Amino acid sequence: MALFFAWKFYGEMLAWDEGDELMRKIAGHVRDGAMAYLRQQYKVMLLVFVVLAGLFAWLAYGMNLQTHWLPYTFLCGGFFSALAGYFGMRTATAAASRTAAAARQSLPAALQVSFRSGAVMGLVVVGLGLGNVAAWFVLADLLMPASADAGGRMVLITTTILTFGMGASLQALFSRVGGGIYTKAADVGADLVGKVEAGIPEDDPRNPAVIADNVGDNVGDVAGMGADLFESYCGSILAACALGAAAFVATPDAQLKAIVAPMAIAGIGIMLSIIGVFAVKTEEGADQHMLLAALGRGIHISAIFIVLASGLLLWLLDMPNAMGVWGAVVTGLVTGIIVGRATEYSTATTFKPTQHIAAQAEGGPATVIIAGVGVGMLSTAIPVLVVGAGTLLAFFLASGLDFANMTQGLYGVAIAAVGMLSTLGVTLASDAYGPIADNAGGNAEMAGLGPEVRNRTDALDSLGNTTAATGKGFAIGSAALTALALTASYLEVVRFELLKNGIDQLALPGGQMVATAQAQLADFMIYFNITLLNPKVLAAMFVGSMMAFVFSGLTIMAVGRAAGMMVEEVRRQFRETPGILEGKAEPDYARCVAISTVGAQREMLFPSILAVLTPVLTGALLGVAGVVGLLTGGLSAGFVLAIFLSNSGGAWDNAKKYIESGRHGGKNSLAHRASVIGDTVGDPFKDTSGPSLNILIKLMSTVAIIMAGVTVSFHLM
Amino acid sequence: MALFFAWKFYGEMLAWDEGDELMRKIAGHVRDGAMAYLRQQYKVMLLVFVVLAGLFAWLAYGMNLQTHWLPYTFLCGGFFSALAGYFGMRTATAAASRTAAAARQSLPAALQVSFRSGAVMGLVVVGLGLGNVAAWFVLADLLMPASADAGGRMVLITTTILTFGMGASLQALFSRVGGGIYTKAADVGADLVGKVEAGIPEDDPRNPAVIADNVGDNVGDVAGMGADLFESYCGSILAACALGAAAFVATPDAQLKAIVAPMAIAGIGIMLSIIGVFAVKTEEGADQHMLLAALGRGIHISAIFIVLASGLLLWLLDMPNAMGVWGAVVTGLVTGIIVGRATEYSTATTFKPTQHIAAQAEGGPATVIIAGVGVGMLSTAIPVLVVGAGTLLAFFLASGLDFANMTQGLYGVAIAAVGMLSTLGVTLASDAYGPIADNAGGNAEMAGLGPEVRNRTDALDSLGNTTAATGKGFAIGSAALTALALTASYLEVVRFELLKNGIDQLALPGGQMVATAQAQLADFMIYFNITLLNPKVLAAMFVGSMMAFVFSGLTIMAVGRAAGMMVEEVRRQFRETPGILEGKAEPDYARCVAISTVGAQREMLFPSILAVLTPVLTGALLGVAGVVGLLTGGLSAGFVLAIFLSNSGGAWDNAKKYIESGRHGGKNSLAHRASVIGDTVGDPFKDTSGPSLNILIKLMSTVAIIMAGVTVSFHLM
Repeated sequence: MALFFAWKFYGEMLAWDEGDELMRKIAGHVRDGAMAYLRQQYKVMLLVFVVLAGLFAWLAYGMNLQTHWLPYTFLCGGFFSALAGYFGMRTATAAASRTAAAARQSLPAALQVSFRSGAVMGLVVVGLGLGNVAAWFVLADLLMPASADAGGRMVLITTTILTFGMGASLQALFSRVGGGIYTKAADVGADLVGKVEAGIPEDDPRNPAVIADNVGDNVGDVAGMGADLFESYCGSILAACALGAAAFVATPDAQLKAIVAPMAIAGIGIMLSIIGVFAVKTEEGADQHMLLAALGRGIHISAIFIVLASGLLLWLLDMPNAMGVWGAVVTGLVTGIIVGRATEYSTATTFKPTQHIAAQAEGGPATVIIAGVGVGMLSTAIPVLVVGAGTLLAFFLASGLDFANMTQGLYGVAIAAVGMLSTLGVTLASDAYGPIADNAGGNAEMAGLGPEVRNRTDALDSLGNTTAATGKGFAIGSAALTALALTASYLEVVRFELLKNGIDQLALPGGQMVATAQAQLADFMIYFNITLLNPKVLAAMFVGSMMAFVFSGLTIMAVGRAAGMMVEEVRRQFRETPGILEGKAEPDYARCVAISTVGAQREMLFPSILAVLTPVLTGALLGVAGVVGLLTGGLSAGFVLAIFLSNSGGAWDNAKKYIESGRHGGKNSLAHRASVIGDTVGDPFKDTSGPSLNILIKLMSTVAIIMAGVTVSFHLM
Repeated sequence: MALFFAWKFYGEMLAWDEGDELMRKIAGHVRDGAMAYLRQQYKVMLLVFVVLAGLFAWLAYGMNLQTHWLPYTFLCGGFFSALAGYFGMRTATAAASRTAAAARQSLPAALQVSFRSGAVMGLVVVGLGLGNVAAWFVLADLLMPASADAGGRMVLITTTILTFGMGASLQALFSRVGGGIYTKAADVGADLVGKVEAGIPEDDPRNPAVIADNVGDNVGDVAGMGADLFESYCGSILAACALGAAAFVATPDAQLKAIVAPMAIAGIGIMLSIIGVFAVKTEEGADQHMLLAALGRGIHISAIFIVLASGLLLWLLDMPNAMGVWGAVVTGLVTGIIVGRATEYSTATTFKPTQHIAAQAEGGPATVIIAGVGVGMLSTAIPVLVVGAGTLLAFFLASGLDFANMTQGLYGVAIAAVGMLSTLGVTLASDAYGPIADNAGGNAEMAGLGPEVRNRTDALDSLGNTTAATGKGFAIGSAALTALALTASYLEVVRFELLKNGIDQLALPGGQMVATAQAQLADFMIYFNITLLNPKVLAAMFVGSMMAFVFSGLTIMAVGRAAGMMVEEVRRQFRETPGILEGKAEPDYARCVAISTVGAQREMLFPSILAVLTPVLTGALLGVAGVVGLLTGGLSAGFVLAIFLSNSGGAWDNAKKYIESGRHGGKNSLAHRASVIGDTVGDPFKDTSGPSLNILIKLMSTVAIIMAGVTVSFHLM
């Protein structure tokens, strides 16, 4: 259904008028640039994936340290994640000029084109994601030999298909980091030379980096965001299936229900998302408030109905502790919504924090930076407290009100993430339509359309910034819960590796023996000494925490370097072709696109490889306890750091817009110039490092899962 | 001995010529301002301490939830920490004008006055610290009733005197946060209006904030740093004593040796520090390189001899596993030195990172900020890896090469911190003399002494910046190790609370029972489920991580607000008394001093109270497992965040100095203006938030220790 409606919306979008020749030409430049980027990125990734798949095949078939499914699930995860990004970007690049053309007619028309195009992305992500998970589950159930131990067989199946997540995570990291570097290098480069040095307005066609800047919105905000949430979505469902299988291993009937429940909830969520998409419409002359209400209608309708529908589903399934699991689903949804609201509070111009930053801009760049850093750090309080409380509550409800019941409790945490992401089809639509409206505005500006057109696209764009806050809330919240669930799943994979190596008894302190197959998570914690005062755990926690900072530092500096190359190129073109600034010669857009592309590819490799290698090395040196320490240390610091970076960046951006709307001296005042510097500093914070951190923590978990066999074999040596 | 030599050096310093009348008058202003600040701060703190001591007395005598010693140890810890700060500041404020006067004679004279005055601070801190710890130990041994269980009695004694740490920690936090806000509000305020708006040079007597700025160096860098390290020093010795008592509880003879060893090592370190202080001297015409060698001689002599002497001591003591414990001591020393070197690499103008920031200054304020943030984040890698490896190694060596031997291993971690801080007398001297030289330069400038005087004080000041990096390495490294050891000690205190409540058996999973008195740390981890997948631990880790960011955000914004008030005041004075800028009227220095004082007092309360309340609330809501999660989460994120903030700030500061030395256009170039903005942003990073984080993580541990009784009684309800 998701793919059918995505195809239908895509066709409807293509049927809209594409505008005049100039608009088509500009759209063509952007499309070509975006596709050139994707081609280049997919080439690099293909190489990495082929090398890793070969390595995995050797580990699986040669060393027998991996499941034989791994090379295929890994490649498949990467491929479908890339495919979702590709469809999203194809749609977005085709939709921008059509949105601009529709905006010549009316605001409702422009909203419909852009929002339904965003919905293509949302529906492709959930359709491909759930389809893959379900298909792998059915395939594994068909191919894996029958066993007298039906419960154990299901655990094996669900932990095997978990490996699908690593391909998706790695692809997502490449897309986010590469896309983030691309878009910010182009943005910063275009602004520094174009706006500040040459004094030409934003989106002016005389700026050689302007096409690269518009390509960047698609590459970073559409393809990157799509791959990111594809991975979160699949990860949360897969982790819930694996933990459900483990929690009810003794009762195969209940076990199957626990495995099916997350997929079924996701399926219902897709249907409700489609209804939500249809609910988004507005009338001409709608103000910001009415537009927000229109979008909110779509999101709220699907959220309210998923609460009811998932409760009904779990009741019909006759699931054990159905009400507790339902409570976890609702907890997840509410957590996501509160985190989104908190993000909005910290970054929207209507609230105090952003207004404080704007006021501090009167003191110059230093005070605006200090205020933004302070606001960003303080803004971590509510999301962290809410996610912490949500984790506890989901765990407690799903565990049957017994904290000692760890596996069922962690199943609840995983299913809370599924609940949070269940209506991703529509929430992602409201996220992905933002860059389309932004690009439509660029197209209108470059094509010289009238100011009323630009006003309409600006209204849509500015709305997109607000809904993006909600989307970020879901991305951040779900990343934390999913990473937690994946860490718990890691120990289930370790169990199988122990069994495979003939360790069918765990010797606990005091001489007590527990059968490995029946061991609870708590027993594993004791067996591997995964306690907080084990120095291996502590040292690994330090490293995990440090990884979050080093990874952010690497990506922030990468943007700096790539932007520097862009600045050089734009300056060179202005210098060598004086006709450009007079509007007589066309700048060489393609060179700027190529520079951003090459820069992003080169810069994304090292941080990504570091993210893959760290869990492997930690496992080899510090064992299972070290890996869990690394993952939780990375999660607890990375989660908070990601919120800080995203919110600081968002608040600086909006503080600038607040000043531009006439406060503190308005455009071109000293305060405005200071706020532009704040915004530039915030660009890599909010669009490169912050979102990449969410993927980093999940990628480290999936790498750990893949490498569990190697780690266990080291442990046994 | 330490106090005797401190008194001797103080007397020698006072005997130096204090300079002409103007110099004495300026020094008087600074001294009065500093003392006014201390009076105000001690008034606020007295109130807080009296209230808390009353609360503790009620908990101890009324509710029987605390040791009866607590009110006294708490007050005593706060009092002696404050006393060390008071002596240090009295010395520093008297030494500045005398250093300036000595600099009129020669460089060696100026070095001697300033360095030996710094040594007063160093020796007072270690003398009062070790004296207190030893005195409390002897007192407790005298007063506590004899018991057939000699080993258990010693554990009770050492865990009781642990409570001394909380008073010292709380005082240190007030000093660091208050002092940090004071000094940066004055600095930023003086720079923004004086240098940028009015265009008068640094340390110009026409600037009304100039005295407050000079007071700030004493308040923040002398008194704050002293209280900080007093608390680290006492904390590491106390934690080592408590863990030593716990590790060898079964063998009273070995136990006493394990308790005495940290105090004895600290004692030998004091003697070697005094020798080190005498080894620091140089001759006229010494260049930067020779000055550095002179200081290095003092530090290295004491470091090399402490390695030999502590080995000999442990061998003579016939301590169990003497070589392993000695290995831990050496590991601590080496860790501190490497962290210091890494700090130097990241922040000194002679290395790439700072030069990269300076180069990025050519692109304007935005690129210099981005580069500094990136450099700071990357700079966390080496210190974290080294401290992580040092923790593992110290644990492994002291545990007798058996990771399962947790209490002895953690004793090794604590004694590594003792080793790192053993020569604090001389390392703190080389840290504290920096602000004295800085103030001497200010005095020389305001008193209109010749340029050769200023050159000499500048040489000393700039050297101080380099040695401060080493000092910071020790402060950061020891904070991490000490916090770890305190967290481990927390569980020892919990053991006593359980016993006091009649819980003499711990029921472990599987029905196994362990006697509480004999339980190992690992048993407590199991009993309280202090494992990484316990949702209470995870939620508390999130909160700990978040606390580090929120605390930093609060202190950064506090500096912004206090600096804003200072800017208003300086502008007002320039406006209402035009004679000031013409040099005809004297500015109202006292008003600026008062504004910084009041601002710092008001702003320091909320973050400090938050730091005290968080462990209490976490204990009440999430129990012992939650507290340990909070402490380790706060430690692993706070440790990394502190390095990032300190190093970013230090690198921006030095990038500015690098440009001022003539690179990238030199003074007053565009690059220089951009680098000044970087430096201003870095001020609260490196001098307020970064160093305060080190204390925050230790204060949370000591609060947890104090509140163990309350937490356990909640647990038992």
